[in-house]
Amino acid sequence: MAVRSVETETASPAAPLLSDEELRARFQATGEERYHHRHPFHLLMHEGKLSRGQLQAWALNRYYYQSIIPIKDSIILSRGPDPVFRRAWRKRVVDHDGDATSEGGIKRWIKLAEATGLDPNQVRAGNGILPATRFAVNEYLNIVRSRSLLEAVASSLTELFSTKLITLRVEKLREHYPWLAGGLDYFEARLYQAPEDSQFAVNYVYDNAKTRAEQELAIQALGDKCDILWAQLDALHFAYVQPGWPPAGAFRIEAS
Amino acid sequence: MAVRSVETETASPAAPLLSDEELRARFQATGEERYHHRHPFHLLMHEGKLSRGQLQAWALNRYYYQSIIPIKDSIILSRGPDPVFRRAWRKRVVDHDGDATSEGGIKRWIKLAEATGLDPNQVRAGNGILPATRFAVNEYLNIVRSRSLLEAVASSLTELFSTKLITLRVEKLREHYPWLAGGLDYFEARLYQAPEDSQFAVNYVYDNAKTRAEQELAIQALGDKCDILWAQLDALHFAYVQPGWPPAGAFRIEAS
Repeated sequence: MAVRSVETETASPAAPLLSDEELRARFQATGEERYHHRHPFHLLMHEGKLSRGQLQAWALNRYYYQSIIPIKDSIILSRGPDPVFRRAWRKRVVDHDGDATSEGGIKRWIKLAEATGLDPNQVRAGNGILPATRFAVNEYLNIVRSRSLLEAVASSLTELFSTKLITLRVEKLREHYPWLAGGLDYFEARLYQAPEDSQFAVNYVYDNAKTRAEQELAIQALGDKCDILWAQLDALHFAYVQPGWPPAGAFRIEAS
Repeated sequence: MAVRSVETETASPAAPLLSDEELRARFQATGEERYHHRHPFHLLMHEGKLSRGQLQAWALNRYYYQSIIPIKDSIILSRGPDPVFRRAWRKRVVDHDGDATSEGGIKRWIKLAEATGLDPNQVRAGNGILPATRFAVNEYLNIVRSRSLLEAVASSLTELFSTKLITLRVEKLREHYPWLAGGLDYFEARLYQAPEDSQFAVNYVYDNAKTRAEQELAIQALGDKCDILWAQLDALHFAYVQPGWPPAGAFRIEAS
């Protein structure tokens, strides 16, 4: 199928099964190389060098990613044959869509976008998001639909790295963009939600990747997910930082 | 569904049906604004300002697009209930995959890539293509799978604009990159294949878009297809021209 990445590292058929610790080390190495903590757009953000308009473009585009997360997790729910698995995974849908006691991550992201000065209705409608954002995010849906459940679960393992990044981000956003401080609930919630989720997911992969080939597919799924995050920042960077060519129909930064 | 673009121009429910000529003019206007003939990467190509390495990156990445075209057309075939429609559309699969008398467009693109100096095995394997290329191209598959057959057909209408672009490109490639001259069979073939295909497709849209809303969806599908082509060149431009950051795992241009 055309969907799969072409860079799969193929272990020889005789390659030995990795121990849990070795597999964890491979996940870690993938994150070190490919997770978006290293992306120049994030580096500029953390140095306080982004304008309000650039943060608006980020919040607007990233909303599209946020908005599909519970759809992605619902697809995974629909593929999980085991009630115990589904009960654990269902928490993710609740975390993002909310319930009687919690507004949920999507609404929290809207509050962040509002804190940048965007109209929440524009954000919800997705007016002006970059086509490249849609393409990268929709690929996440392709992956969880078309690959094995093991790979769908493994693609969530970027959460192994998110706590460290979010901790830094919250600190830097408060320091450099104090006018954003009222919009940071999303990140505060993720700091306690993500570790539990990633622990469940990594244990699932340890238990269900029963061959080296399956372990390699799980590593590949994590790498592909990193590429999806990275490509979203590339699109933002190139449209709004350098050289600054948003395509036709995309959000334009107002002169301020 | 998350796949659809958010920029749909919604005509009011009472909006009148466009005549064939008016609909054709809307297609034309969409192409003027969004087709990739205006992309800076193509402008540089036509001015002779791309290096051999940059043309290699283009040929390598564009191969991924070429390779899914007959898959895309096979999906459309599978959705066409009418044998007459399928007989006409089948020609596209033959044009790209070849038959006893013709090598087909995919093999011709391999020859173009070889003329840039790439190893054809690397090209076929897709080693080093940009993740953003995969995401944009896979969105084309999403569109023809998840939207109406009318929209799937309309998304091919970039062929209304391709003859003019290819005519210019062949002239400019011969002028500025004479070492590529042996690899241009792909384009020569498209000059007689595309006009017949686009005539069939545009007539299909005239006949089958029976409401203004359906006409607007067809226009939107063409615009989204233009975005898919544009995003592929954005990714190439930003990775290999300016600022020049191919992501981890992507093809690197060798110092020459």
